[in-house]
Amino acid sequence: MPIVRVEMWEGRTHAQKAELARVITEAVVTIAHTTPEATIIIFEDIAKSNWATGGTLASDTTA
Amino acid sequence: MPIVRVEMWEGRTHAQKAELARVITEAVVTIAHTTPEATIIIFEDIAKSNWATGGTLASDTTA
Amino acid sequence: MPIVRVEMWEGRTHAQKAELARVITEAVVTIAHTTPEATIIIFEDIAKSNWATGGTLASDTTA
Amino acid sequence: MPIVRVEMWEGRTHAQKAELARVITEAVVTIAHTTPEATIIIFEDIAKSNWATGGTLASDTTA
Amino acid sequence: MPIVRVEMWEGRTHAQKAELARVITEAVVTIAHTTPEATIIIFEDIAKSNWATGGTLASDTTA
Amino acid sequence: MPIVRVEMWEGRTHAQKAELARVITEAVVTIAHTTPEATIIIFEDIAKSNWATGGTLASDTTA
Repeated sequence: MPIVRVEMWEGRTHAQKAELARVITEAVVTIAHTTPEATIIIFEDIAKSNWATGGTLASDTTA
Repeated sequence: MPIVRVEMWEGRTHAQKAELARVITEAVVTIAHTTPEATIIIFEDIAKSNWATGGTLASDTTA
Repeated sequence: MPIVRVEMWEGRTHAQKAELARVITEAVVTIAHTTPEATIIIFEDIAKSNWATGGTLASDTTA
Repeated sequence: MPIVRVEMWEGRTHAQKAELARVITEAVVTIAHTTPEATIIIFEDIAKSNWATGGTLASDTTA
Repeated sequence: MPIVRVEMWEGRTHAQKAELARVITEAVVTIAHTTPEATIIIFEDIAKSNWATGGTLASDTTA
Repeated sequence: MPIVRVEMWEGRTHAQKAELARVITEAVVTIAHTTPEATIIIFEDIAKSNWATGGTLASDTTA
């Protein structure tokens, strides 16, 4: 029944998400004692133009 | 003032969302004693490539 | 696989949540064509001191 | 370490988001005593066809 | 109709939240052109034992 | 900059969360190519009385 939500900047590949889903599910199952079938992983791709730190949108940051 | 957030795989039609909004709002108003105007429903369409159960992305699952 | 999240001010009874879970699940199953077992409903109770509209915390609102 | 999530109907410009990120970060830093670098602002654009109040999707509302 | 969600470590006072609600609502209304009544601010207090950066729970971090 | 949110039924120990934070951060850093310092993990403990599947609150489920 765990729900894991992963928010990252867009640009991760399908292969990276597949690998993350596999490894995080394994960690949750092993450590929190649940089943893979009960574990949901949701990825949310955030555009850099929708994410700010330091008061500045990441899409506006140089370097 | 209730906020209801519905996450589903993408592919639901506009008519399905309109019907869900109507019925869920009615349920919340009747059961939780609030008003339709104070009830917000937000739909989030999740791509199958962003959703995993059993450690596998739904877009990679056969059958 | 739908996940429905219901945020309301704290104070709803267990019976109200049970009834909401039953009715919303039924609506989602019927309208969005999924199964009850695949439908997750999560309630979040928000204290009035953590909720503002009109720029004022609900716990500070008179009337 | 504060995370601020702003959900609005789509249509806000980049300039509006940049200004919101700047002002909200400043408010959080000043009032909650943290640093700009530790403050994350995430914007989520919600389509009117995914948002209902009064039991009706905003995209179906006239006037 | 904007919903702003502020996640912070627990420990902020009621006065700090009231001031944040006031200032953030004002910013959203002015910059995004909406009304105070349509602007919802929700605060979520996160325990340090439920928050990790660098792979370590904040409650376990020294200094 | 990834934010990982883990929702589980309440009852996981501090040690389980610490271990999950460590392992998930390691996975995110390795697979998504970020730094531990930029990776935030947030745990949310959900009471069984606030979680339903099959239309029934988990606290009301026998067996």
